[in-house]
Formats: sequence, structure tokens, C-alpha cells
Amino acid sequence: MQRLLLTMRFDGTRYHGWQVQKNAVTVQQTLQDAIEKVTGVRSGVTGCSRTDAGVHANMFCCTFDTESRLRGNSMISALNANLPDDIAVYGCSEVPASFHPRYSAVGKRYRYYIWNSPARNPFWEKYSLHLRWHLDVDLMNEAAAGFLGRHDFSSFCAAGSSVKDTVRAINRCSVERDGELVVFTAEGDGFLYNMVRIMVGTLLEIAAGKREKDCIPSVIAAKNRECAGATAPAKGLFLDKVFY
Amino acid sequence: MQRLLLTMRFDGTRYHGWQVQKNAVTVQQTLQDAIEKVTGVRSGVTGCSRTDAGVHANMFCCTFDTESRLRGNSMISALNANLPDDIAVYGCSEVPASFHPRYSAVGKRYRYYIWNSPARNPFWEKYSLHLRWHLDVDLMNEAAAGFLGRHDFSSFCAAGSSVKDTVRAINRCSVERDGELVVFTAEGDGFLYNMVRIMVGTLLEIAAGKREKDCIPSVIAAKNRECAGATAPAKGLFLDKVFY
Repeated sequence: MQRLLLTMRFDGTRYHGWQVQKNAVTVQQTLQDAIEKVTGVRSGVTGCSRTDAGVHANMFCCTFDTESRLRGNSMISALNANLPDDIAVYGCSEVPASFHPRYSAVGKRYRYYIWNSPARNPFWEKYSLHLRWHLDVDLMNEAAAGFLGRHDFSSFCAAGSSVKDTVRAINRCSVERDGELVVFTAEGDGFLYNMVRIMVGTLLEIAAGKREKDCIPSVIAAKNRECAGATAPAKGLFLDKVFY
Repeated sequence: MQRLLLTMRFDGTRYHGWQVQKNAVTVQQTLQDAIEKVTGVRSGVTGCSRTDAGVHANMFCCTFDTESRLRGNSMISALNANLPDDIAVYGCSEVPASFHPRYSAVGKRYRYYIWNSPARNPFWEKYSLHLRWHLDVDLMNEAAAGFLGRHDFSSFCAAGSSVKDTVRAINRCSVERDGELVVFTAEGDGFLYNMVRIMVGTLLEIAAGKREKDCIPSVIAAKNRECAGATAPAKGLFLDKVFY
């Protein structure tokens, strides 16, 4: 038995997130189907994070244990031939049985894209939130610095989450403009359920003048989901990188 | 009557090109339907170029004459509300009746994208040619310089084209790499039918070692379509900019 670590991209539009669910197509299930076709054996796949329905990934990592002797590009090509166009594996390496794609990760980077223009963009339709009113990116970037550091982020965790330890460290948090595209980037040792989307939703309320620029520390201190902003839509969110 | 110039983006995947055809959905027809819904009148729309089935546009220009008093963002919003997700208007301005989106253009820029990696990329699937073997971009870029200047490009024009004047001037032609993405850019006063796709196909045969690096001038001099390379697939091609 060998544990293999797969690195993949997926367009989450058609999927009900990563994790296998009854009566809904998920990325995990689609990948497990492809692995079964390639190896002849049904293997459970462990992912680096749960991702919500509609969220995308430029880098998503997962492991499975197999007797198959396919390695590297041979395994990648075999899997991709059995995966739909919106999922593609681009890395495959051997890891020890002690490696866990979630617990071995030391950090993650998420990106959230906003197409900020009066007109829609067909190429960003599925990958961004479209906002017609002009965003003050400098203001949002200054506000975003309030997320930096190690904090209890329970204000930025979806109600109903069962996670107990809600302390996370954010070491990079910025908002930048590239023409009509506004990009939010957050890097940290881990993220709570819906955390990035609530961070973005809160920054958008600051940009809209509904909250003060320096409100983030007090929202964090409240440890109350109701004190933060709305959850931004899933389709603008990308898991961009997992650090090991 | 006022002539309006529209600027738009479209994802050409679903369309049989720009120009209205019997029994096939085209961008022109889809736009004319939207204009009819907004203005109440069926208007003919004139485009800046014919584009092939599957070709995309970051900037496509067209004009129509209307009695409607909608202007600027009001016209843009009304049209976008009646257009499918894969077509979006982002500019609308008044132009004199003498303005013609094709004959008034002084130049165009095309881009051709190649995803150059052993693994597929779900996000570039519809917008690039996928090549698994590593392209020597420096070699291709040196070869591409052979296209520069004013030449009779009949070797790079699809057989069966009825155009008489096959002389065009190319003032920018380059191949660049951005990670696993290879981008071909060509700027000129005009392009013949399939010209960019045949230019790319010929450069790919140079990269594959099937032709010499300095062959372009002699292929041009032959004035014979059979002397140039294969036509690269439509899906990697974008009309990127029209200059007026």
C-alpha cells in the first residue's frame, strides 16, 4: 500500500462542494470514481479542506492509499482521461502513511475575485462576484490589515459550525486592483467554515460606507457571527494554494 | 437616426461565429435579438470582422442605427439584461453615419493562448490549445519576427477566401511564456481569413522541429497556402483589441 498525494484544479460551478453527499455530485465522489476506473479498486480520498458548493480551486490536495504501481505523470494522465473537463490533476507524489492533507498543511492561501465594472464580463461570470459600484480598494486594503495576527475568529465562522478551536493566525491579507478586477488575498494557518467569504462580505460593507474602516478588530473581539458582515457568494472564491 | 458603436466581449464556445447563418446560433443574431427587445425595432448590426465558430473576443466592435434615445450605460445595461451570460456589451458611444466598424478600423490585435503542460487546466479548457510537449518559446518568438512588415500574406489565408487584396502589414508579432501559459500576440492593419490560426500553426511546426526557424519569409514569398502550416484550433483565439 502506498499513499499518494494528488494536486488538482477544479471549477466548482457544477459541484456541491468537495465532500461526498447523498443525491448531489461532489468533487470527491467524481475523483473517487476516476480512481476506481484507473486502479480497479474503490479507494477513499481524503481532502485538504471541505469546500462549499460553487467554490473553485487552483490547488486542492488530497491523498489516497493504493496498490497501483502507476506514479507521477502516468497516474496524472490516467486520472485526467477519466475526469470531466472541470477537474484536472496536475501533481502526484508518494508520501508517507503519516501524511494527512489537512493536518499536515501548515497554511493555505485563498483568493476572492470581484469584477468591478458597470458591465458584466463573460469570462469572469462564473469566477467572480460582479459589483457595478466602484470599490475603494485602498480603503478596503487598509481595513483588511485589521485581520492580521492570531485571533479567535468566531465572528467570522458560519453559525452552526461544530469546530471547537476557533483561533487562527492570518499572516497576509490584502485587497488589490488589476483594472476592473479586484482581488482579495488571505493567507493563514487555517480558515474556519465560510471565514473568507465573511471577511470579504465585511470588507464590502466597509467599502459601502456601512461600517467604519477600522471596525475589524472590534468585530473580531465580539466573537459573535452577527457582528460581522454578510457571507459573500461562493463563486468568487478560490482555494489558491496549500502550504506543506 | 443615430449610429451607435457597441464594444463587447464574448465567449465564442457556443456560437457559430459572428455572422448570421441559417440554422446556427451566431453572436450577431443573438445581439440583434437583444437590440430588438430593447428598442422594439429589428436593426441590422455591422461587425468589425467575421470571426470563426469558437473564436472569442475581449473587444469586438459593431454598429447599428437606431431611433432609440437610450445612450451609454443605460443602453449597455438594457442590452446586457437581454443577452446571455457569454456575451456582454461594455461600451456604447455615438458615431457619425460615415463610421464603419470594419473599414474605419486602423488595426487589430489578436491573441492566441496555449496551455503548455502535461496536465489539462479546467479554467483554460475552452480558451486555449492544450499542448503537453514543452514549447521553446524563445525559438518561436525569434521565428515570429519573420512575419513583421508589409507582405502579401496569401500563404496564410484559408483556401477558398474570396478576398482580392492579400497584402497586410504586421507591426507586432511575439510569443511569450507566463508560467505554463504561452501567449502569441499579433498586431496589424488587418488580417486575412484564418490568418492568425495559420501563423500559430506554422510556428508550432517550427517548435516541433518540422521547419527551420527562419522559414517564415520563404513561406510568405511562396504565396501558396500549402506552403504554410496547419490551421490551429479556433478555441485558443481571441480578438483582443480593435484600433480606430
